[in-house]
Amino acid sequence: MKVSVSAIVAGAGRGERVGLPEGKQFRLLAGIPVLARSLLNLEAVEDIGEIILVVNPDEIVRAEKEIVSAYGMNKVVAVVPGGEYRQESVFKALRSLRGDPELILVHDGARPLATPELFRRTLKAVRDAECEGVITAVPAVETIKEVEGGWVVRTPERRRLWSVQTPQCFRAFALLDVHEKAFREGVWATDDAALLERYRYRVRVVEGEITNIKITYSTDLILAEALLEKGGLRVAAPGGPGI
Amino acid sequence: MKVSVSAIVAGAGRGERVGLPEGKQFRLLAGIPVLARSLLNLEAVEDIGEIILVVNPDEIVRAEKEIVSAYGMNKVVAVVPGGEYRQESVFKALRSLRGDPELILVHDGARPLATPELFRRTLKAVRDAECEGVITAVPAVETIKEVEGGWVVRTPERRRLWSVQTPQCFRAFALLDVHEKAFREGVWATDDAALLERYRYRVRVVEGEITNIKITYSTDLILAEALLEKGGLRVAAPGGPGI
Repeated sequence: MKVSVSAIVAGAGRGERVGLPEGKQFRLLAGIPVLARSLLNLEAVEDIGEIILVVNPDEIVRAEKEIVSAYGMNKVVAVVPGGEYRQESVFKALRSLRGDPELILVHDGARPLATPELFRRTLKAVRDAECEGVITAVPAVETIKEVEGGWVVRTPERRRLWSVQTPQCFRAFALLDVHEKAFREGVWATDDAALLERYRYRVRVVEGEITNIKITYSTDLILAEALLEKGGLRVAAPGGPGI
Repeated sequence: MKVSVSAIVAGAGRGERVGLPEGKQFRLLAGIPVLARSLLNLEAVEDIGEIILVVNPDEIVRAEKEIVSAYGMNKVVAVVPGGEYRQESVFKALRSLRGDPELILVHDGARPLATPELFRRTLKAVRDAECEGVITAVPAVETIKEVEGGWVVRTPERRRLWSVQTPQCFRAFALLDVHEKAFREGVWATDDAALLERYRYRVRVVEGEITNIKITYSTDLILAEALLEKGGLRVAAPGGPGI
């Protein structure tokens, strides 16, 4: 099957790092699960031909029932068990691609407010630019310091720093190549773009959306709800039950 | 006058970087100006003997009337005009100290949710530790990249990265020393701790508060209001009018 773009949605992860209970992607955001919102926004993008959803191994049945079926997702062709780390999860998803895409878009399941327009812009950017990958990011607002054992060791210059979001979009051959190499060589990174950088592919930055927050802390749900209520966000209209 | 702690509140800054209208520190947060909230939380800390408030030169009269007088601030001993950059503003405030403090605490006027408890913890940390400065920070949630001309050039390892907040607290001799040196040598930094690092003083990190957000974007006001309403934040009870 030839598809133009395959999307991978990283919806595994326990939220342990920040003390949220398990299954944060199932938590309701204005009545609709966070993960369902993320997927619905992707479904609305014409170029995306298939979506691979990665969730925790013990949440597959729940995800199929409460998210994919309940909201009538048309493009989700596989729900696959994630690994211990995000990179492992994406690697597993790559092995589950049904299509033979030109581009692969990777998105966090915990970013329910990314708009279809942002996905379209990201796809256009990677097609237009002389590069193998494009990430969305916003300028870092806070000063960031490198810390070791409670001591400050370095303050990178803030005007050079960007805070990375998803979507990230890659030429399929490059993403497949770096994940294979990283798997063989035991290289780990917190985002896919870092793997491309490591293997000398070119990664460009396009401006993301300030409202495209990641639901990490409980306070993020409060903010996301406020943004939906008051912020006039353009999001895809969900067609599932409970609306 | 011998005071234990002097506080400097950096309330200058146009918000131009993020497209907010001027005077963002005067914007109401649940009925009380952002800047007034920040100051009231500092007034509640016993050890703080004086507060120097820095605002934009054309906002001094407004700050004195609408903030300091209106809310009956007892510890604000001077409202001084800020410079073009934050560092210049702090430098000017240092020259306006009335007391001869052991410690100087620097706080952003745009962080109205920092609790008196956080200020107390920060002061205790700098007294207890073998260091000249303590900053509050939270672990960086997002991947951060160093970018040049739209291209990614470096991805610092995320587990070493902390997102810096205020309050920051310093031994007075060290803060005065580095600001004098930086002024003479034309050295610029986005926070005071970076100046201490530059001149080889020791800076420790203590855990800040996730809710201690900086009002930068309009969406931050929405979040701050939601946090005040639903988050059960402990904040000092304001004693001024309009409550």
